[in-house]
Amino acid sequence: MALSTELTELLGLRHPIVLAPMGGAAGGALAAAVSRAGGLGLVGGAYGDRAWLERELPIVAEGTDQPWGVGFLNWAIEGGAVEQALEFHPAAVMLSFGDPSPFADRIRRSGAVLIVQVTDLDEAERALDVGADVIVAQGTESGGHGARRGRSTLPFVPLVVDLAAPVPVLAAGGIADGRGVAAALALGAAGALLGTRFQATTEALVDRSVSEALVEGRGQDTERNSVLDIARGASWPLEKYSARTLGHPYLDRWRGREAELAGDSRARQDYQDDVARGVIPPLPVWAGEGVDLITDVPSAADLVTELAAQAEDALLRAGRLRPNDRS
Amino acid sequence: MALSTELTELLGLRHPIVLAPMGGAAGGALAAAVSRAGGLGLVGGAYGDRAWLERELPIVAEGTDQPWGVGFLNWAIEGGAVEQALEFHPAAVMLSFGDPSPFADRIRRSGAVLIVQVTDLDEAERALDVGADVIVAQGTESGGHGARRGRSTLPFVPLVVDLAAPVPVLAAGGIADGRGVAAALALGAAGALLGTRFQATTEALVDRSVSEALVEGRGQDTERNSVLDIARGASWPLEKYSARTLGHPYLDRWRGREAELAGDSRARQDYQDDVARGVIPPLPVWAGEGVDLITDVPSAADLVTELAAQAEDALLRAGRLRPNDRS
Ligand SMILES: Cc1cc2nc3c(=O)[nH]c(=O)nc-3n(C[C@H](O)[C@H](O)[C@H](O)COP(=O)(O)O)c2cc1C
Ligand SMILES: Cc1cc2nc3c(=O)[nH]c(=O)nc-3n(C[C@H](O)[C@H](O)[C@H](O)COP(=O)(O)O)c2cc1C
Repeated sequence: MALSTELTELLGLRHPIVLAPMGGAAGGALAAAVSRAGGLGLVGGAYGDRAWLERELPIVAEGTDQPWGVGFLNWAIEGGAVEQALEFHPAAVMLSFGDPSPFADRIRRSGAVLIVQVTDLDEAERALDVGADVIVAQGTESGGHGARRGRSTLPFVPLVVDLAAPVPVLAAGGIADGRGVAAALALGAAGALLGTRFQATTEALVDRSVSEALVEGRGQDTERNSVLDIARGASWPLEKYSARTLGHPYLDRWRGREAELAGDSRARQDYQDDVARGVIPPLPVWAGEGVDLITDVPSAADLVTELAAQAEDALLRAGRLRPNDRS
Repeated sequence: MALSTELTELLGLRHPIVLAPMGGAAGGALAAAVSRAGGLGLVGGAYGDRAWLERELPIVAEGTDQPWGVGFLNWAIEGGAVEQALEFHPAAVMLSFGDPSPFADRIRRSGAVLIVQVTDLDEAERALDVGADVIVAQGTESGGHGARRGRSTLPFVPLVVDLAAPVPVLAAGGIADGRGVAAALALGAAGALLGTRFQATTEALVDRSVSEALVEGRGQDTERNSVLDIARGASWPLEKYSARTLGHPYLDRWRGREAELAGDSRARQDYQDDVARGVIPPLPVWAGEGVDLITDVPSAADLVTELAAQAEDALLRAGRLRPNDRS
């Protein structure tokens, strides 16, 4: 048996479980593995780096005959990246963060399912306006980038579900085991999109130190911040987006002094030098509040299978009914 | 039929739904109504004001023959308040915020179920140490007071469930409809504790302007802050706790300048004068992020019945299985 939702129907999936298109980390091998296991694997196209896509898209396209997709960052998409991806006939394309309208029509005309990730109700309305087939409601407990002033997943998802109906909604943010997937469905979502949890799989394109940090890491040590984006010179629009990361020496050093750091080119050079000397890792460890639930680094296939089984189990257990003799 | 959990078994409840012991707002009539409807009604004893308890405890004790309880704030309990409450034979006593150990034994010896509300894993461990029979895991999307640096409900609850097992855990924070109750159970909780939603019932001891503000209010307009505690001269330990409220003129005026406000007795007098002149309401409107889901002011009995029916429905819908022909 398997859980059936509008998402599994729409895309012909076995499980209502989606791999977040994590920039860099969700490569072709991870996406293909998730799709083969019955979820929906999304390649993390991010800015749309052509060389990276040229390498990763053939891997996923050849790696599975099941539906797969690719995700991009609206505010950053490089010219031609969406077209490049569409040549590989993804079943779905996901657009996040910023205005999806320049890309929405092209994607829908290709026949791909258009997924749009949103962080508030205004964005959800705009996603519906551009014809999103699926909406991802991202809560502030999520790993990686998201709205600076976000909503929490549990109260946010039902709102988006009500607004979007009959368009199906996925829950994202803080989901790292099958109970979280089950909770997403209970809230009315048609599935769950997981990032942080999939970073700790054998196929993720991350350094071993990252998976180890995720196994060790605690949700209470994660923090939404802009410090690390500023320090590493990332081009994210800082007034709208921050990112949830594990602790980091530069975070302790610069927390609350973001403007100063932005104006201090010497400090930003120090960061690069520290990376070069191996004093700090090349990238922050992006992690959501669900990180405590990560205790191993399985294959993506084993993870999808386990998440689905746990979710079914959690719903069966939660829905335990008894004759209501007292009423 | 009705949902059966460790909580409903432990206390003999019809529904795994608990009224948060909201200081002032959860009086005897509201608690009795919730208990009569098959949930667990908790009177909001807060600081333990003896005159208030003398008025409200007889109302709940005489208002229901079903289990009910009372809640207190550990850091504030006035001498004798717990004893005063125990004389009315509550089925449960809930302790929140601060060290429960001075009161735990007395409560357990009385035969009452000891419920302890926690905001992080350390507090959860301490609650188990003092012999809590039930733990409430409160997420940062909750209305009213909570940890300044809190955890989100969805990822926090499963952690506490794993830590506390076999002690049952309730989810609190951002739950305002039956889907939220269902999600709590899916996460492994034995029930849900709701505050904000119950403030908008006919029995709540709040001004009509408060229920109206809750019906109008949006989660994105709620904000955790200390400004209003400082302005109104509340004695909450500010380094540990803040409160989530709806927007307020003093919040806009003083956000980010808390230390200055604390040192400005003139500004705090202005606040009192503004209250006296009716320019601002006597109290902040404490509201959680689930406030968008509140669209009416029903009786507590109708609310409990509807929450339970929605939760059952949400779990049945979410748990829809199909033969897995693709696997
Ligand atoms: C390492 C990492 C990289 C991410 N990169 C992207 C991205 O490029 N595009 C995107 O839409 N979302 C990205 N996200 C956010 C995810 O889409 C998703 O909202 C988030 O992972 C959900 O929360 P969770 O990490 O708690 O599962 C990223 C998340 C992580 C953890
Ligand atoms: C108006 C109001 C007053 C509250 N007073 C108390 C209190 O006196 N003691 C307590 O333990 N919790 C109190 N709480 C917090 C609740 O116990 C609970 O954690 C919270 O309401 C759950 O989040 P929700 O409001 O989103 O349902 C209060 C909450 C509200 C909204």
